[in-house]
Amino acid sequence: MPVMPSSDSLPDPLPVLARAVAGCSNHNSVGETAARETLEQVMADALSKSGSNRSAVRAVCLAVSGVNHPTDQKRILAWLREMFPSHVKLYVQNDAVAALASGTMGKLHGCVLIAGTGTIAYGFTEDGREARAAGAGPVLGDWGSGYGIAAQALTAVVRAHDGRGPHTMLKSAILQTLDLSSADELIGWTYADPSWARIAALVPVVVSCAEAGDEVANKILKEAVQELALSVKAVVQRLGLCGEDGKNPFPLVMVGGVLEANQRWDIGREVMDFISKEYPGALAIRPKVEPAVGAALLAWNEFMKEYLQEAYRR
Amino acid sequence: MPVMPSSDSLPDPLPVLARAVAGCSNHNSVGETAARETLEQVMADALSKSGSNRSAVRAVCLAVSGVNHPTDQKRILAWLREMFPSHVKLYVQNDAVAALASGTMGKLHGCVLIAGTGTIAYGFTEDGREARAAGAGPVLGDWGSGYGIAAQALTAVVRAHDGRGPHTMLKSAILQTLDLSSADELIGWTYADPSWARIAALVPVVVSCAEAGDEVANKILKEAVQELALSVKAVVQRLGLCGEDGKNPFPLVMVGGVLEANQRWDIGREVMDFISKEYPGALAIRPKVEPAVGAALLAWNEFMKEYLQEAYRR
Repeated sequence: MPVMPSSDSLPDPLPVLARAVAGCSNHNSVGETAARETLEQVMADALSKSGSNRSAVRAVCLAVSGVNHPTDQKRILAWLREMFPSHVKLYVQNDAVAALASGTMGKLHGCVLIAGTGTIAYGFTEDGREARAAGAGPVLGDWGSGYGIAAQALTAVVRAHDGRGPHTMLKSAILQTLDLSSADELIGWTYADPSWARIAALVPVVVSCAEAGDEVANKILKEAVQELALSVKAVVQRLGLCGEDGKNPFPLVMVGGVLEANQRWDIGREVMDFISKEYPGALAIRPKVEPAVGAALLAWNEFMKEYLQEAYRR
Repeated sequence: MPVMPSSDSLPDPLPVLARAVAGCSNHNSVGETAARETLEQVMADALSKSGSNRSAVRAVCLAVSGVNHPTDQKRILAWLREMFPSHVKLYVQNDAVAALASGTMGKLHGCVLIAGTGTIAYGFTEDGREARAAGAGPVLGDWGSGYGIAAQALTAVVRAHDGRGPHTMLKSAILQTLDLSSADELIGWTYADPSWARIAALVPVVVSCAEAGDEVANKILKEAVQELALSVKAVVQRLGLCGEDGKNPFPLVMVGGVLEANQRWDIGREVMDFISKEYPGALAIRPKVEPAVGAALLAWNEFMKEYLQEAYRR
């Protein structure tokens, strides 16, 4: 939750006046009330740290996970409206939109691919049409995500152990990492805390095994690359971002731990190779600022757009 | 938790003196203390309903989910031992073992395949070796389970919706069943209550779509059949249940809602067809008594075995 100055020029580096951090604000995970309290608190913290208060705010952009449907957006906008005076511009978006903006300095054009614990692809055309793919959580098959990769690896270990699948060095590598002595103990381990991030933390083990030549691990990563590329393609196709000849340039912002691993087996580079073959105009961007700054830039850009339109009318 | 009489002949139908039902006793799901309290309570209820008490008990078999490792067995045996006098015979098994016994009238020989919300294959040789496959929960890839089938169907809907997968009639069928107006709303629906049984309840919708000719639904069911058959094969192979020529007869007990669906698309029959091709000696058994009676039969058989051995020694 960075607070940007209400200045009409943006110096480099960006002047972030304050920064505050809070817990989960996904209403799907923690419920409506807790999500709202978390967001109110982190906004109050950011303002207080910047030595300011609500009356100085001109625009707010909340980019939060769990905004999957217009009703989510409306509900959050409604209580945001209760908090701020009516002249304040308010924007509510899926957190992927802020990640896109963090790579395009606030411009909503192109596609973002996020692959951390979860995964989503989200895109905008210059005339404001939007589309997304994946981002629906593990039950609904976000297979290229960190959780997806690690869950496939754990599954491969169990299958190798009980005779349903081929031998894989993932077994000894994962058991050693988790300090377990038998694959049977994985069942208790997964039940003990089903948090997706805890499972996704095993991705580096999968990458190491793939680099060491393990076929099962390599197959899991190759499938993840295809899944991630497929999400991007679905968004690019639906929005026509690549133009009719498939060669138009567009930004492709890449965010998240799975894509940033810079080892020999580089998932992000493989995904980009896959996409470049189909869309030579895809311009890979690794953002230099965090997604929260993307949200602030988004608020700034939208505010300036409306401000200039109003000024022009007068 | 049926209570069987301590008689040396077993009339038909089996004389179940009392029956009591309680909630979840899987320590992985509800924790050690709650699991123990549930089991103590249901045993006390069954005894009280039969007009008896602990002093009349000769043998106890607890067949509970969550017994995946010898340490699970030891822990439960330890507190069971605290409850009953030392002459009482105690057995603790995975719940799949009771399901096997429910089909073989207490004899531990052959393989059981359970496919309800979850899935597991479990087998015993006549000389007491045992093996299992799957049964590790959804994170660890129990893909032929009711949960697995339904989760694949939900994933197919999301993929069709966001352009990553082919069109499927699963979309309208599932949205209608869940009273949702858009596939986006599935995300909130899955988060709202991640209970596996709630998701597995969608299996009949998948079967209906497959019967109506939907290719995506058919593919999901065919893959489930292969997964379930693979679990059985893994157990049969490891135990050598089929003999060296692959043709030895052995019981294959089939239990659970996924296998019992007796529609045109009969998953249980398809699994059996698959297995019969490889192991012509597999003898399909659909148990006539519930798994809890299987556990009681198991206690009875084990008790009689030890009793006769002791009598023989004297």
